[in-house]
Amino acid sequence: MPDKKLITMTTDFGLTDYFVAAMKGVIYSINPAAEIVDISHQIPAHDIYAAAFTLMSCYKDFPRNTIHLVVVDPGVGSARRPIMVMTDEHNFIGPDNGVFSYIYQREHVNRVVHFTTEHYFRQPVSNTFHGRDVFAACAAYVSKLVDWKMMGEEVNDPVRFNTPTPTVVSENHIRGSVIHIDRFGNIITNLTPAELTSERVGAGARVRIGKHEAARLLTHFAEADPNELFAYFGSAGLLEIAVPRQSAARLIEARRGVEVEVIVP
Amino acid sequence: MPDKKLITMTTDFGLTDYFVAAMKGVIYSINPAAEIVDISHQIPAHDIYAAAFTLMSCYKDFPRNTIHLVVVDPGVGSARRPIMVMTDEHNFIGPDNGVFSYIYQREHVNRVVHFTTEHYFRQPVSNTFHGRDVFAACAAYVSKLVDWKMMGEEVNDPVRFNTPTPTVVSENHIRGSVIHIDRFGNIITNLTPAELTSERVGAGARVRIGKHEAARLLTHFAEADPNELFAYFGSAGLLEIAVPRQSAARLIEARRGVEVEVIVP
Amino acid sequence: MPDKKLITMTTDFGLTDYFVAAMKGVIYSINPAAEIVDISHQIPAHDIYAAAFTLMSCYKDFPRNTIHLVVVDPGVGSARRPIMVMTDEHNFIGPDNGVFSYIYQREHVNRVVHFTTEHYFRQPVSNTFHGRDVFAACAAYVSKLVDWKMMGEEVNDPVRFNTPTPTVVSENHIRGSVIHIDRFGNIITNLTPAELTSERVGAGARVRIGKHEAARLLTHFAEADPNELFAYFGSAGLLEIAVPRQSAARLIEARRGVEVEVIVP
Repeated sequence: MPDKKLITMTTDFGLTDYFVAAMKGVIYSINPAAEIVDISHQIPAHDIYAAAFTLMSCYKDFPRNTIHLVVVDPGVGSARRPIMVMTDEHNFIGPDNGVFSYIYQREHVNRVVHFTTEHYFRQPVSNTFHGRDVFAACAAYVSKLVDWKMMGEEVNDPVRFNTPTPTVVSENHIRGSVIHIDRFGNIITNLTPAELTSERVGAGARVRIGKHEAARLLTHFAEADPNELFAYFGSAGLLEIAVPRQSAARLIEARRGVEVEVIVP
Repeated sequence: MPDKKLITMTTDFGLTDYFVAAMKGVIYSINPAAEIVDISHQIPAHDIYAAAFTLMSCYKDFPRNTIHLVVVDPGVGSARRPIMVMTDEHNFIGPDNGVFSYIYQREHVNRVVHFTTEHYFRQPVSNTFHGRDVFAACAAYVSKLVDWKMMGEEVNDPVRFNTPTPTVVSENHIRGSVIHIDRFGNIITNLTPAELTSERVGAGARVRIGKHEAARLLTHFAEADPNELFAYFGSAGLLEIAVPRQSAARLIEARRGVEVEVIVP
Repeated sequence: MPDKKLITMTTDFGLTDYFVAAMKGVIYSINPAAEIVDISHQIPAHDIYAAAFTLMSCYKDFPRNTIHLVVVDPGVGSARRPIMVMTDEHNFIGPDNGVFSYIYQREHVNRVVHFTTEHYFRQPVSNTFHGRDVFAACAAYVSKLVDWKMMGEEVNDPVRFNTPTPTVVSENHIRGSVIHIDRFGNIITNLTPAELTSERVGAGARVRIGKHEAARLLTHFAEADPNELFAYFGSAGLLEIAVPRQSAARLIEARRGVEVEVIVP
């Protein structure tokens, strides 16, 4: 059985039009042994931050040698480069627009390859659909174990956006920020157990966001009171702020980028 | 080729976030030979009744030895048990919250297993995402034919909700109820050909719901007049009430649980 | 490895209910070696034109011997025929309601088969769900290489809708029409490079739609000014009209069937 045949897809193409299917058709035409798993096609249009977060939250759950294909590509047709980020575990293929910023932050990257060999593109390459003509085709060839050296050249300056890290202002005061809002309206921050240590939690740490405060750090939803704004470590390993069975983000009008403070009394 | 490798998924996680993908990644990491089929990820949040109905309507169409994984789990993090319901044909894996009530009603259940062996869970087990850490992991191991005795212990008191059955009040009067509203607004009842016998239908049976009445039992949509409220046996083998190309549920304000009466003149 | 095992699905069943899953269950029960790829299940209800467009835009991207299953079937339960359209490359299975009109227009069709052998249907055949009972079952048997002669008989009068072709009124005046609106609100016409030759484009061709005009034919979105109504050849090889990051269709109230004119000054 050939190695490296699992390909995940993350796009903003939605599930209504033919775009995702065309990409899959191209992949299966090049490598009938590929297996494709959808991560999400409902990334908000052109939202590379949401795509980056979504990928970050689940890529590690996939087997070694999975190829993660991400096509959220507001610059399609412009000069932005099609790239592959290679780590020991996984390969990541998509536009060089920052969508792999969390990978650069969290993984040891062996190299970033700029796909330049048109032989591996679907011909003719359209100006509007590199997802099909460039990214899907290249992912399929990579899944067939074509050597990256045949497909392009190494680059050292991939685009990355600022991936905010929490600041420990003082022993009793930590500053973080909101990095995502999920479908249930749960507010996901960049705070981890490294900042919210069990010591600080034990001392009664409170989480402030805007004019609101989550007074309790709970271990699961069932512990929360109705309408209580509470904090917990979510399934991505990050501190989240929620209200049981309601959209916390709507309730307190939280958005990505908003500051979050931890105060230890 | 290993047996038992088809796994279906029914969740309320939606298709926007990474949740479903994380579960699939866990499954493929444990059993690369698994094949996953989505039943629905659009179950209304926490609606175990809708999940139970959806599963009931299609599980029998899948091949012998399919594993049906259902994660609609309002009690995640609480003490509700992760279980597997085993029949001769299929295995059903999910939280013990009643989501398998129709299976208990319709199938001969060989045993219900409470998964207790943490060795088969994804570590560390989060408090908020047992879909990934418990249910997907266990489903993958079951698909690899791990013996259930290794994975947990038999239990005899699974949670079940009341699955309403029609009442034959008299020869000319049968009472049933609405058990589901589908995407098109068709109203699905618990009435079957056992109550609506061809004799009763031949005698001019009418179906009453609230203040409304479906005067005709038709065999297909094309027979109905525009705007006609009519009844028919739907694809799940149950009596449904519809209006051509409109949402009957919205039109007559029908909801799950509402009483339906059959009157034979 | 058996040939002809890839099956695509295009329906208006949505992703909420069990309909698509039931079809997949039937397919896997008949042919465990089948591989199923979703094209779209979000075709607007009963919209055979949208289904035909969606299929047309991606069927060629799939490997030789792919089976394309299309179930948008407002006439389910009536006498419309279940058919298979066979070309050298692909087989197309669905109701005989015009949904394959673009295939008749673009491909050399070897034959159209009317499925009549009930042995290959899922029994009992319901009146409301031929997607599961007839089309999915037949697609699965075709994927197992059952001879079409066993499954039905050739017919010569498949239903087709009018697939509009552009009219060259004069050397400086071409008339086409809108054939689809995509999810982003981009307006897709039936005009191709055959009418909008590089000569005409070079001479400053303008595209008129209603009271509006796209003054420029660009090669990609990034070239357009904010709020500019512009034209370009899209990924389906057809002239499209768009506004960057907005819904052009909503902005200028364009609908399928609306006339589009190319004026060469």
